[in-house]
Amino acid sequence: MNIAIIAPYKDVSDWVATFLQLDSTLTVEVFPDIHQNDKIEAVVLWQHPHGILKEFPNLRLICSMGSGVDHIMADPDLPKDIPITRIVDPRLTFSMTNYVVMGVLNFHRQLFRYLDYKKRKIWDMSNPEIDIQVGVMGAGQLGGDVLDKLKGLGIIALAYGNSPKESYPHPYFYGDQLDEFLQQVNVVVCMLPLTPKTVGFLNLTLFEKFQKGTYLINVARGKHLIEEDLIDAISAGYISGALLDVFQEEPMPPEHPFWEHPSIMMTPHIACITMYQAAVPQILSNIRNLLNETSLQNQIDPTQGY
Amino acid sequence: MNIAIIAPYKDVSDWVATFLQLDSTLTVEVFPDIHQNDKIEAVVLWQHPHGILKEFPNLRLICSMGSGVDHIMADPDLPKDIPITRIVDPRLTFSMTNYVVMGVLNFHRQLFRYLDYKKRKIWDMSNPEIDIQVGVMGAGQLGGDVLDKLKGLGIIALAYGNSPKESYPHPYFYGDQLDEFLQQVNVVVCMLPLTPKTVGFLNLTLFEKFQKGTYLINVARGKHLIEEDLIDAISAGYISGALLDVFQEEPMPPEHPFWEHPSIMMTPHIACITMYQAAVPQILSNIRNLLNETSLQNQIDPTQGY
Repeated sequence: MNIAIIAPYKDVSDWVATFLQLDSTLTVEVFPDIHQNDKIEAVVLWQHPHGILKEFPNLRLICSMGSGVDHIMADPDLPKDIPITRIVDPRLTFSMTNYVVMGVLNFHRQLFRYLDYKKRKIWDMSNPEIDIQVGVMGAGQLGGDVLDKLKGLGIIALAYGNSPKESYPHPYFYGDQLDEFLQQVNVVVCMLPLTPKTVGFLNLTLFEKFQKGTYLINVARGKHLIEEDLIDAISAGYISGALLDVFQEEPMPPEHPFWEHPSIMMTPHIACITMYQAAVPQILSNIRNLLNETSLQNQIDPTQGY
Repeated sequence: MNIAIIAPYKDVSDWVATFLQLDSTLTVEVFPDIHQNDKIEAVVLWQHPHGILKEFPNLRLICSMGSGVDHIMADPDLPKDIPITRIVDPRLTFSMTNYVVMGVLNFHRQLFRYLDYKKRKIWDMSNPEIDIQVGVMGAGQLGGDVLDKLKGLGIIALAYGNSPKESYPHPYFYGDQLDEFLQQVNVVVCMLPLTPKTVGFLNLTLFEKFQKGTYLINVARGKHLIEEDLIDAISAGYISGALLDVFQEEPMPPEHPFWEHPSIMMTPHIACITMYQAAVPQILSNIRNLLNETSLQNQIDPTQGY
């Protein structure tokens, strides 16, 4: 089979080598050097140029190189009725979850307060903990793992999702129960998929519903957050601080106000990185499933966008 | 029954009120205003003046106000054959464990590297994680909880203890298996009890056996650590950084070199604080056990010192 990797901003040499090492019968072409368009049956995508998929008349499978598929769904010329898969990687889950737990604990145990005390040589034993209840927005595989791990640490954590669920192992809210959910938490973790419904979901109207002094963690996508609204919400006291891993513009430009904001901690989109060692076998497995006409793993529902 | 609280450096008014609220038949005297010495049957201690216990001829029970009993065992005039109990508080365990997990995750996910990047406006996505294996020294109730929680997060964690154990739910090393233990870990957490055997256990001779760049967390007692040796071990590269909650001298004096050391993060002995709400009922329960001649909870073995 011929596949094409289309990821103009990534060095994909490790991906190509791993594909060929695991299946020497494959032909792997890498954008922009794709020559046998009509032979391509599967594409492996990360931030592909919109419209390009129309150039592959025999396309049968679209694979995201990562956990998210928003970069695929954003293409207005996305071919209809071709299955789309994403990567579910235990290592990716491990990384994402432990990053979130780190952020939760640093708020709970006031790491930044004690960093400041260290600078100022202050010894103050008063009020060593902030009591927390954590609200995780996005109750999918990643959000569910965060909820499980927080519960394991004895931390109360609640979920908010898009649709009703028959049974869920954690307190679960959805749809218009948002206000009720937010009234019970003082840490909000955004792990939502990026869909037309969730773009800009983290905005001042939402923040005004937060309990005063809520801590915000965003590990989903930069486009979930209206960045100027976060600064306003911190000034107004709705939010006491934030840990952000994703931004509207990445790399974040040097003039961005977050760099110098004392209550915003950020990392350069490293909460989880999909590793080709985990991703390539999953994509290959789905290519075989396609050839054998068996069901695909981690296929997304295009009507939901995740 | 008459009891005496002897804790010269603590405000114990909440303790007294809680004792009397829960058992109005008690007589509670507070050092230094103790007048009916021969009626005292139980003492509740935190850093008591050594030798004072000889003044209570009818003493039957010695209670630590906290998890540790080293402050009691250090008294050369400790009366023989009087049972000694300590506090085991789920909330105390929760606090201690989550503090340690915070420290482990901040090393694993390099929080201090990204703090530095933020100051310098650097966007660098390379090597976002340090692979870790955690070694917990002290395999008692607190250490065991840390091991359980780390395992729950998918982090490999090993225990080191004093004596052989028949069965232990984590990889377990003891005694002269110390070198073998240290070769497998790059985060060392000290949760040892403070005994004559463990005073100064964290010293340069030990650090020289660490894997290069090991991270050290001390939440046990300040006297476990030879503080100047830590600075030397960081300079020599055996240790890459440390999170310390306890110190030889507390409050830490302003001239102490840790305040300005870039690789040492510290907090003012707040990893866990025994709360009187949890501790007083446990002490009362043991007073009743004593009166009923049933076995005591959380009695320590004076030959071991914990």
